[in-house]
Amino acid sequence: MIDFRSDTVTRPTTGMLAAMINAPVGDDVFGEDPTVNELEAYAASLFGLEAGLFCPSGTMTNQIAIKAHTQPGDEVICDKLSHIYQYEGGGIAFNSGCSVRLLEGNRGRVTADQVEAAINPDDIHKPVSTLVSLENTANRGGGSCYDFTNILAIKAVCTQHNMAFHLDGARLFNALVAKGETTAQYGSAFNTISICLSKGLGAPVGSVLLGPKPFIQKAKRIRKVFGGGMRQAGFLAAAGLYALQNNIARLAEDHAHAQLIAKALAEKDYTGEILPVETNIIIFEIKGRLTAPAFVAAMKEQGILMIAISPTQVRIVVHLDISQEMVAKTMEAIRKL
Amino acid sequence: MIDFRSDTVTRPTTGMLAAMINAPVGDDVFGEDPTVNELEAYAASLFGLEAGLFCPSGTMTNQIAIKAHTQPGDEVICDKLSHIYQYEGGGIAFNSGCSVRLLEGNRGRVTADQVEAAINPDDIHKPVSTLVSLENTANRGGGSCYDFTNILAIKAVCTQHNMAFHLDGARLFNALVAKGETTAQYGSAFNTISICLSKGLGAPVGSVLLGPKPFIQKAKRIRKVFGGGMRQAGFLAAAGLYALQNNIARLAEDHAHAQLIAKALAEKDYTGEILPVETNIIIFEIKGRLTAPAFVAAMKEQGILMIAISPTQVRIVVHLDISQEMVAKTMEAIRKL
Amino acid sequence: MIDFRSDTVTRPTTGMLAAMINAPVGDDVFGEDPTVNELEAYAASLFGLEAGLFCPSGTMTNQIAIKAHTQPGDEVICDKLSHIYQYEGGGIAFNSGCSVRLLEGNRGRVTADQVEAAINPDDIHKPVSTLVSLENTANRGGGSCYDFTNILAIKAVCTQHNMAFHLDGARLFNALVAKGETTAQYGSAFNTISICLSKGLGAPVGSVLLGPKPFIQKAKRIRKVFGGGMRQAGFLAAAGLYALQNNIARLAEDHAHAQLIAKALAEKDYTGEILPVETNIIIFEIKGRLTAPAFVAAMKEQGILMIAISPTQVRIVVHLDISQEMVAKTMEAIRKL
Amino acid sequence: MIDFRSDTVTRPTTGMLAAMINAPVGDDVFGEDPTVNELEAYAASLFGLEAGLFCPSGTMTNQIAIKAHTQPGDEVICDKLSHIYQYEGGGIAFNSGCSVRLLEGNRGRVTADQVEAAINPDDIHKPVSTLVSLENTANRGGGSCYDFTNILAIKAVCTQHNMAFHLDGARLFNALVAKGETTAQYGSAFNTISICLSKGLGAPVGSVLLGPKPFIQKAKRIRKVFGGGMRQAGFLAAAGLYALQNNIARLAEDHAHAQLIAKALAEKDYTGEILPVETNIIIFEIKGRLTAPAFVAAMKEQGILMIAISPTQVRIVVHLDISQEMVAKTMEAIRKL
Repeated sequence: MIDFRSDTVTRPTTGMLAAMINAPVGDDVFGEDPTVNELEAYAASLFGLEAGLFCPSGTMTNQIAIKAHTQPGDEVICDKLSHIYQYEGGGIAFNSGCSVRLLEGNRGRVTADQVEAAINPDDIHKPVSTLVSLENTANRGGGSCYDFTNILAIKAVCTQHNMAFHLDGARLFNALVAKGETTAQYGSAFNTISICLSKGLGAPVGSVLLGPKPFIQKAKRIRKVFGGGMRQAGFLAAAGLYALQNNIARLAEDHAHAQLIAKALAEKDYTGEILPVETNIIIFEIKGRLTAPAFVAAMKEQGILMIAISPTQVRIVVHLDISQEMVAKTMEAIRKL
Repeated sequence: MIDFRSDTVTRPTTGMLAAMINAPVGDDVFGEDPTVNELEAYAASLFGLEAGLFCPSGTMTNQIAIKAHTQPGDEVICDKLSHIYQYEGGGIAFNSGCSVRLLEGNRGRVTADQVEAAINPDDIHKPVSTLVSLENTANRGGGSCYDFTNILAIKAVCTQHNMAFHLDGARLFNALVAKGETTAQYGSAFNTISICLSKGLGAPVGSVLLGPKPFIQKAKRIRKVFGGGMRQAGFLAAAGLYALQNNIARLAEDHAHAQLIAKALAEKDYTGEILPVETNIIIFEIKGRLTAPAFVAAMKEQGILMIAISPTQVRIVVHLDISQEMVAKTMEAIRKL
Repeated sequence: MIDFRSDTVTRPTTGMLAAMINAPVGDDVFGEDPTVNELEAYAASLFGLEAGLFCPSGTMTNQIAIKAHTQPGDEVICDKLSHIYQYEGGGIAFNSGCSVRLLEGNRGRVTADQVEAAINPDDIHKPVSTLVSLENTANRGGGSCYDFTNILAIKAVCTQHNMAFHLDGARLFNALVAKGETTAQYGSAFNTISICLSKGLGAPVGSVLLGPKPFIQKAKRIRKVFGGGMRQAGFLAAAGLYALQNNIARLAEDHAHAQLIAKALAEKDYTGEILPVETNIIIFEIKGRLTAPAFVAAMKEQGILMIAISPTQVRIVVHLDISQEMVAKTMEAIRKL
Repeated sequence: MIDFRSDTVTRPTTGMLAAMINAPVGDDVFGEDPTVNELEAYAASLFGLEAGLFCPSGTMTNQIAIKAHTQPGDEVICDKLSHIYQYEGGGIAFNSGCSVRLLEGNRGRVTADQVEAAINPDDIHKPVSTLVSLENTANRGGGSCYDFTNILAIKAVCTQHNMAFHLDGARLFNALVAKGETTAQYGSAFNTISICLSKGLGAPVGSVLLGPKPFIQKAKRIRKVFGGGMRQAGFLAAAGLYALQNNIARLAEDHAHAQLIAKALAEKDYTGEILPVETNIIIFEIKGRLTAPAFVAAMKEQGILMIAISPTQVRIVVHLDISQEMVAKTMEAIRKL
């Protein structure tokens, strides 16, 4: 099977597996897992942030960040397609008791003006606007990337209005590679960043939440109450560390693969709008007699898995386990349909 | 001062005050306030519903209803201008831990198709859609009224998808009077209804939540935990009872007054779009050199109070304490500006 | 009926009713009810605190205080018989997401040593201890009063450990009268105080939360989200103001009445332990062939209402609506049984 | 170092590590990790329960169970020393908005009579009692075991009062081995059971929540919103599966080791009360000139780690990584002190 459903489906490479099996481990609840400690320190230093916290998922790092930045009755400002609103089980309300102010972004990306206009006045009828959360790349925007100047403009609004600024960086490394940006830039722009190790980077499990020391201390409490504290988590952390040290630059290959597939799609009559392919995600319309589910079913018969994200839209995600041959086979299947 | 800021500013008339002072009272926490009991029974029977619960505010009746219909992690479907989302302090998330799915309605009114499209699939990434809440009349829609057939169509969607159906009827009596509808119609359409006694009806304090007996029993628990249980509340309930028995039909006068004022506004160059005036609310744009706050300030100098609900929009609410003379004086002031 | 079930059952006197009917009122959600404003200012100044907030019940003032002093995941330290834990519907957890550390007090009163020993260490397995809440008089302690030196010792522990210090003063005026203490003493000892107008003081509805201005501003937000904001609440506030200005000193009569009834009880064989009667509450055991419910039933046949708070315990609460004649009749009934 | 601080500190054996490295894995968020699926099915069938859910920690399985069994405003009945109350960061209130009714058990074990007496009457002042949670073995009771007849008696109370019945079985296998009981017995007694793989059983990470299929489906939603869903979690699940299949019977060795160490302690003057040693935990008092922290420090100098759980109490936990030689060395150190 050629699996384009998500970049979460990757399995560890031999090198990563070796790193896992040889990792020194300890009880991380006592703070004694050397590999977890190394991963947290490494990731933090990569971004020039003070501290990190290893968690079982990106949903947990995001949810902890939201909880730690807010109090019940506060409001979170984000794009209406954000993962934190769309795919985290309603956690903003469930875990944090916070409202959302949903912005109509451009492929998942919002502007400083939109953010500023969304801040509530000081009125007891309204929640207090305390957190702005961006997602880069934006999954539902088709892997779209922010312009960094836009991020700085939003940061200025946050600073002026005393709001926290969080980045859901589940696929941040794709953006960095695509735009030639640096981790240091992002570390200095955001208060807190969540990075995911188990998407494009290819680790089996885990995300790291990055931020100032007191924040991470608070985050540790919240991880505990969610039950996210793990014991000998070093086996997983080793894979994450390996991923950060080996699998970032190669994301460019995934992006090139995505371009090739998009090109094949663009040549077909059944293809409607294809969102600009900036990284490893292709979101495209199926038009005419074909529906998105029918297209996905036809591809599945060829051993190729995709997801219909709406009756007319299909999503393809390219990743580490997609080889050049698989891309060729997929292009062939697209052309023949 | 002629106060058009809200229909909540009314003071009891002599008749209402007499009803208050002569009300038999008791300890309602023991269920022994005869006037509260009478109000709850009267309001329930008016709508053909089983039971009622007297609360200090419409925010509380709405928030209790939302809590009683949902569990944390559920999702509430409503118009994006809804009072429950816009003006209740973020209570959907704070009190109930629920997410919102905000619909782009027509002046605050949504359609059955919109509701159906907003229901989440059975997917653990998504909150469970369990409650649809309408508002009639819709405050931020300029006192707009639902067509009852539309309500029945939405009810059918709720029934089919096993969702609860709540009405924020803060100004329901305005809709009933304007459209010639009956309380019985609404009682049979919704699972639960919140009616407000302290808006157009002119009582000083309170709302009543109406629904099936087991629901109201559950609501009583939630009222207790919010601290909404009152002792000798009969003084307030007496005013509410008086309002329900004497002040409904006369809402037509408010509507006529609103038409007159809107007509005066329509004749002026500084007036932009006026939302269709269906009941006692006028929402209109100020254009040209004038801003909404400047217009409001100019009126205030004439002893007339209104609210600028945005930089370009003003809201006028007509009510029981607005006499024919006050309307005439206001029209005069509008013309002279 | 002679109703000893609670001091909440009182009905307004003629003077209080006159104060209510003549009160100037306005829309308190706009901050424009002069009588509410007067009550809040009067109560605050009585205690030398900055600001007050009028609420529909003592449960609401307590629950708002707990919420405003804490964050989810914090821990509240209180006596295990506290009203906030026993009778507020589980609100500490429901409204605030806070844990409780329950102390084994002496008739509802705890010591500084107990409080200090209950503070959690800095350990992510444990909630953060952020609030100590006392109740004076302690209802379930039989109206027992704190020694003020004990309160000051607890305050010192709170200060040292950076914890907030709240008083549930539902029956504080009974303690003040019984012990010859002043409101100023209490205002300087606690961060926040809730006083109840509808218990011994005889007002129909309401409590006032007192504290620093920024705290009360925060409390106003929480009152809004609970739905506790009322419109022309001045009718109720007028009764509360009258109560504070006229009904405090006379609580001594209730205490004297309680002593007389306790004396009658002490002479009977069916009476077991009587908790020391310090104010207006008598909690006593029924022993031998009689059970508490049977005793209560027998009294009810004589037109006297009491509450069996356990299979062996009965509670009598004396109040404003209990006359000398009623006391005599009750003593007679006790003797004859 | 000889580490008696907890049975969570174990590192995988060679066999377990081989199982991990060779495990087939997939994306468990899509339900496609074969090893996770196998572990969940195996654990469920072991107890005769329908389904299982693999989670990163025992705190998460307990917290999910509590949330899935309750609604905000409910009350959980448990021993006051329970892990769910003492060591899960206040999660009962934080995650579920539930109150606790804390029982004074015998070394962490409660009786059916205590549970029955703790059930709240149907009174809106009181939370609704909906869940009873036991812990077997009881950690803070010194690894004490329930008599199974007692468990059945409590189950009968739960059934009669329509309450759910959950077992925190973090160390259940120790109890089974010590008492000669079976998993089937427990599966038929409780609605839901949490078992821990990373304590005595020696796996690095994880717990499994067991129960009926619809409950586990609900639990999966809650795991998602906490962020507990992991991708290629099969590496961890493989270790858990290995542990369940290989490391249960050998717990008897840990129990024998604990007996030996307790015997050495009993011979020393500095030892006060030693709680009966039923499984792998020893909780004992330090008396005389020595304090618990001083004793722990002295042992640490000998390379032996223990925990002072109070100023006068020390806890020793024996486990898989404690060899016969380590036990002998520890006994020697105890004797020489």
